This record gives sequence, structure tokens and C-alpha cells, in this order.
Amino acid sequence: MKPMRVGLLGLGTVGGGTVEVLRRNREEIARRAGREIVVAMATARDLGKSRPVGLEGIELVAEAEAIVAHPDIEIVVELIGGETRARDLVMAAIAHGKHVVTANKALLAKHGNEIFAQAHARGVMVAFEAAVAGGVPIIKAIREGLTANRIEWIAGIINGTCNYILSEMRDKGLSFDVVLAEAQRLGYAEADPAFDIDGIDAAHKLTILSAIAFGIPMQFDKAYTEGIGRLTAADIRYAEGLGYRIKLLGITRRAPGGIELRVHPTLVPARRLLANVEGVMNAVLVKGDAVGNTMYYGRGAGAEATASAVVADLVDVTRMATADPEHRVPHLAFQPDRLSDTPILPMADVETAYYLRLRALDRPGVLADVTRICAERDISIDAIFQKEAGEGEEQVDVVILTHRTRERDIDSAIAAIQALPTIPAPVVRIRLEELS
Amino acid sequence: MKPMRVGLLGLGTVGGGTVEVLRRNREEIARRAGREIVVAMATARDLGKSRPVGLEGIELVAEAEAIVAHPDIEIVVELIGGETRARDLVMAAIAHGKHVVTANKALLAKHGNEIFAQAHARGVMVAFEAAVAGGVPIIKAIREGLTANRIEWIAGIINGTCNYILSEMRDKGLSFDVVLAEAQRLGYAEADPAFDIDGIDAAHKLTILSAIAFGIPMQFDKAYTEGIGRLTAADIRYAEGLGYRIKLLGITRRAPGGIELRVHPTLVPARRLLANVEGVMNAVLVKGDAVGNTMYYGRGAGAEATASAVVADLVDVTRMATADPEHRVPHLAFQPDRLSDTPILPMADVETAYYLRLRALDRPGVLADVTRICAERDISIDAIFQKEAGEGEEQVDVVILTHRTRERDIDSAIAAIQALPTIPAPVVRIRLEELS
Repeated sequence: MKPMRVGLLGLGTVGGGTVEVLRRNREEIARRAGREIVVAMATARDLGKSRPVGLEGIELVAEAEAIVAHPDIEIVVELIGGETRARDLVMAAIAHGKHVVTANKALLAKHGNEIFAQAHARGVMVAFEAAVAGGVPIIKAIREGLTANRIEWIAGIINGTCNYILSEMRDKGLSFDVVLAEAQRLGYAEADPAFDIDGIDAAHKLTILSAIAFGIPMQFDKAYTEGIGRLTAADIRYAEGLGYRIKLLGITRRAPGGIELRVHPTLVPARRLLANVEGVMNAVLVKGDAVGNTMYYGRGAGAEATASAVVADLVDVTRMATADPEHRVPHLAFQPDRLSDTPILPMADVETAYYLRLRALDRPGVLADVTRICAERDISIDAIFQKEAGEGEEQVDVVILTHRTRERDIDSAIAAIQALPTIPAPVVRIRLEELS
Repeated sequence: MKPMRVGLLGLGTVGGGTVEVLRRNREEIARRAGREIVVAMATARDLGKSRPVGLEGIELVAEAEAIVAHPDIEIVVELIGGETRARDLVMAAIAHGKHVVTANKALLAKHGNEIFAQAHARGVMVAFEAAVAGGVPIIKAIREGLTANRIEWIAGIINGTCNYILSEMRDKGLSFDVVLAEAQRLGYAEADPAFDIDGIDAAHKLTILSAIAFGIPMQFDKAYTEGIGRLTAADIRYAEGLGYRIKLLGITRRAPGGIELRVHPTLVPARRLLANVEGVMNAVLVKGDAVGNTMYYGRGAGAEATASAVVADLVDVTRMATADPEHRVPHLAFQPDRLSDTPILPMADVETAYYLRLRALDRPGVLADVTRICAERDISIDAIFQKEAGEGEEQVDVVILTHRTRERDIDSAIAAIQALPTIPAPVVRIRLEELS
């Protein structure tokens, strides 16, 4: 089957990430989608500029209009941002019968109703997973995963810049201005940060979440928006002392008289998982009447995290436009004739870190024996702790943390350790994963 | 359009929850699916038994075979559990051209390859969102939301019983046996708990996650499984002291020589979000090469949480079997002609809790004035803290936490407080949400 041909508008951070991910994971994606997906044409403001991603095989054109009207292009990816020109191009693509994938939250929050009506009339899809929370599939979770529920409310950390600033203010006791300057230096905040720190970006995203949660039109103009610029280190400290953390939340709730739609700094109990989402990470907490609270967490921005959502939309559209309806999503995610025969590893070949606890007789030389046994097997020890023997006790606990090593070698070491005359009880072994 | 007719095998906890959710959210679900979804027929072992959920309008039959073969039934929901009879019924339903929705992880982990092959050949869908992590849409996230990624590993807390026991052991310093007995008393653990605490249930679920992450057949027989029964309070305490928590994790990883597939107690750094998933909750952490780490969190069991996933699958199948391909999932999650005109509430009508901070002159009577102003507006104060004035300071900080109240009333109270001669600076107001 011939590849799905994509036209890309915009070759900035996310556009470049999209080209890179589609290329690097080309085979994996084709195994899932049932068809290759290739960027056939692209345009950008400054086509001559050198870019980190190679553009071989992509026809570069100066005019976006040539892409949205091109008969060979089936999906147009809009990543130029802004509202006016992006709106015109998306509407033109729809008029030409193209499916559209966009990451443009401002566009959807303000012109989504018109765009979706046009797409519906024209029989094309407009997919927008990348518009909220970057690579986290929150649009899919709400539109498809939680359809059984009457959704009661959504509370989200959906602006990484603000979450980074608030995390740093709390962690280091610094003032807003100092942290903002640092965030700008690190590239986490724009030179003109108002769009993020005033909560406007979060309000765009919240408008989208509210519409799909409650089945209402996009109503960005009715969103209440309050930023983080006036928060002081004192208030963050006081809140902390009372068991709360301050987060910029987008909250939308079904209240008796209507729908709440509001972005503002919010005290959240520190024991809640959402309160522990730190730095530039995003997380969205959704309360449904049947499922209760569910949460979705991940990177809300960045080239490849956002590209992950763009490409997921491309796969969705490709599966829909290509497969038999019954086999849109293959049962095992990959096409049945494209499964892999990669073997499952026996446990002896698994590599992980280990926690070992030994009961040892309180005699000199035990640690020397144990460390020698590990060294002989190339097991690298991260830390070793010997608990003081109590008054009159003959045995002590020794705790060892190892670096990553093969299970086969740990098993051999444990057998040797247990054979020592100074080790009277079985060694406790628990695996350890950093999960980073 | 006539309703989608569902045949339900099993009226236990999840079956009853499915009937209840479909009934309670009937209209909301129809607005999403484009068609009503009704349980038309059902069967259970003891049909005469009294049940918490009403079965009006459902044709009850003694033989499941009558449902899987019935010409009016389009989707069969298998919730009887077990492997032998469930397998026969699912295969029979597929042979009769019915779509199948199942929550049966043991069935899929052991017979999934055969079942999916048959479904593919027969052109029907077998949906199984409820089989892993209850109401958390993790199957959808991996099969559809993360399709751009080469998945590197998955680590999941996917057995609520074990997570409850480990949370309690850590929290209260109790032994495994004591906590298990308490869990059995509370209904969090079965009378015969082996299936959960030995890690077998988690291994069934992990087998499914591994297959859809890496595109490999189900290989439950190759999973390594180690339970929590031998963990001691001492090891949990030692781990805690070193900055780790012990969780029963299902881990599947793409390693150089093959795929790791293993369930065992694992030390996890306490600062990781996953380490802070407590009690019966589930969470699955997925590392993709493009998106990085994403996490999915929620209730892994219970009548309505699991029913949430079953019904989401019913909506998925209904949308697929009913809609134009381009409009399988409506842009705003609800059918365009079924949007709601519920208004967005003005901020003055929003109800939430508040943190207020006042700078006050250090004079008697200030607190009396402030509390009177709140009382006059029916604002209920949760707590009030006055910070000691430092040596020579004329002003003190007063922090007030209110119960939930209307923003209009808080605004009025703030205006009155700021008019007091003892309050020289603007009142700081930050909203507070418990998010429970």
C-alpha cells in the first residue's frame, strides 16, 4: 500500500521533532498504522535556514497554499502557530478535503467551533492531541477513554513554565522575579513571558478540555484567567506550613448553575499526587462519576514530546482512513502480520539493581568476604550499611545496594555469601529500579 | 437509530456496575456514541439471587449460549471470569459475528493469541480496556496514544491488593500477616489471597501490556512472578531510610537480547510519583523514546471503575460500527447535534475554598473585626493563624483558610476587610481546592 502522504506547515521545534520521530520510528509506526506515514511536502518561514533535522526526501515549497491544495497530500499538519494565517490555512485544507492535525491551542480555543463545523460538513478529521499537555494523550483519554462517565471536574497543571517557576520558588525560597529570570536563561520561559505566566496559554488548553468533557462549544472568551506574577515566597511558605502547595491550575467543573472555567493559582493538599508534579511536567486530574479520580502525567512541551502527540494523531487518521472499520486499532496495537518474535528474556539475563540484606555474625572480616565475592563477579556496590549490633546481640544486619548487574551474577554471589560460615540466615534480595 | 443491543454474561460486581452506569448515564453516553447502548439480555449463575442493581427491561436467560447466538445481540460482554467456559463463550460469540468486550485478564493472557486471531478472521472486535488497571484507559493510551514511540519500558502498580498491603505495612510498621488479615476484613483481599499476593494477577495484566507495547504475542508462561508474602517490616523500614519505597511492580522492558517480563517487589526512589501511589490505587508508568515518561493513575478495581472501562469499550465499538469513518470520534467528544448550551458561570458564582493573607496592624480587635465580617457573609472559617510580630514590628501576617464559599461573598468580605483602618495593605487571596 502506498504511504500516507503528509504536508507539514512549519519546521520549528515541533515540526522538526515530527520529521525526526516519523523518520526514526518509521518501521515501528508502519507496523502499528498498517501503512507508512511520510512527510512528503513542507514549508516554513525561512526555508533556507539550517535546521537540526535533515529534510531529505521532503519537497520544500515556499507557499503553504501549495500544500493545502496539493492533490497528493492527504493530511495537513499545522504547526505554524498564531491565529489568523493558521486559521486560513486550516480552513483551506478542510475545503480541499484534507484531514488536519494541529497543535495550535489558541486557534482551537478561539476558532474551534467554526473549524469543527466545517470539518464535519466536509467529512474530514481535525485532530488535536498535541494542543493540550504535549505528549500526554489526555484528549484521547477524555474523548474515548472516559466516555462512560458523567465528568464532574477536571483540574490540570497544563503550563510547564508556570509549574517550573512555582516549583523553584517553593524549593529554593526564591522570589518570582529571580526564578523567572532563571527560567528565561534556561529556555523554560519566553523573553516575553506574559502568555504563560498570565495563564492565557493554560486558559486556551482548559477551554478545549472543558468542551470535550462537557459537550459544550469552545468559549475561551468566558474563561477566568489569573496568573502567577503576584505570588510571593511568603505565601508559598505559609501554604507549605499548612500542608498545601500552590499550583497554577486550570479547573473546569460542572456546578449546579453552569460550568466553571477558570485558571488561577490554587492551594492543593501536599499529599495529593497532583501537588507532587514538579518542574516543567504537566498532569491532568479528571473526576468521573463512575471511575472516580484518574490522572494523566507527562511532558507538556518540547520537540519530541509534542511530536509524539502529532504523530499519534497521524496514526489515528491513517488507521481510520485505511483499515477495515473492525480493524482500525489492531488487537495487539501492531498489525497481526507485523508482530515481532523477539524472545522473552529468562530472568537470569535480566539486568537491574539490587537491595541485599544479610544477617551476619558480628565478627571481623564479614564485610571483606562479602565485598570480595561481589568483586569477583563484577558486581559494583553502590552503598553498604552495617547496622550496629545491640547490647549482647551476636548478629547484625548488613544492607547492600548494588549498581545494575545481571541477575545470574547476583544469584551466584548470594549462593557464595550464604555459604560463608559467618552468614547464618538466607540473604534477602529485592530488586531496585530507578525508573528515570 | 435503534439502540446498540448488548448481551451481558455475568451479573456480579462488574456486571452490576455496568448495568448501573449504562442506565444512569444513558443520555450522556448516547450523546457521545451517537446511539443508545442498552443491555438487552443477561445471564448469571444464580439468576434468582437478589442484586443491588435493578434489572428491569433486561431479558434474563439461563443459558449464556442463547445470548452469544442471539441474532439481535451485536456485542457480547464477558464478565464471568475464569478461563474454560469464558473461552468457549467468547469463541462462540466471535463465531456468531459478535463483537466482544471482556475484563478477563487471565483469559487474554493465556488464550489471547487464539482469540484475537479468530476475531481478526471473523472481522469483529475484541475490546479489553477493563482487563488492566480498571477504569484507567491504559490500553487505549498504549495502543493509540503513544503510537509514535518506540516504547522502552513499562512499570506498573497493577494490583491494588498488594499496593494496599505494602502501603499499610510502611505506614504503620506492621507485618505482612497482620495487614493481610485486615485487608481481608475490609474486602481488599480475597479469602484465598494467593492469586493477588503471589503476583499472578499482576503477571496476567503485565503480559497484556507487554504484548501491546512491543508487538509480541501474549506469553504469560514466560513471565517471572514473585509475590510480596516474604517482605518484612524491617526491609521496608531499611528501604525507607535509604530513600526508597517497596512496590509490587510489573516491569516489561526492551533489553538488547529480548523482552523482560517480570513481576516482583521493587525498591523505587521515594521522590518518584509512582512511589507515592498509595492504597488500592493503580498507576502505570510508560517510557517512550519520543514522549519520555508518562503516567496513568486511577482505581484499578471496583464495580463502577471497572464498568467505566467496559462501557468505554462499548462506546468505542458502537462508534466504530455506527458512524461514518471520519466521524467515529466526534471532534468535541459529543455528537455535534447533541452539544449542550449549559452556560459558563461568571466567576462571582463560583464556589471554592480560600486562603487569605492580611497584613494587619498589631492591635487588639483586628481578628474580631475580620471574623465578624466573614460571619456577616456566611463565610465559614476553617482555620485562622496569626504570625507573631517580630521585635519592634508594627504589623503581623494573619492567614485565614475558609470552607467552600461563593466568590461573590469573598470579594465582598475582602473589600470590607481592606476598609478597616487596621489593615494597611491589600488582602492576598488564593483559591484552595481539596481535589478529593
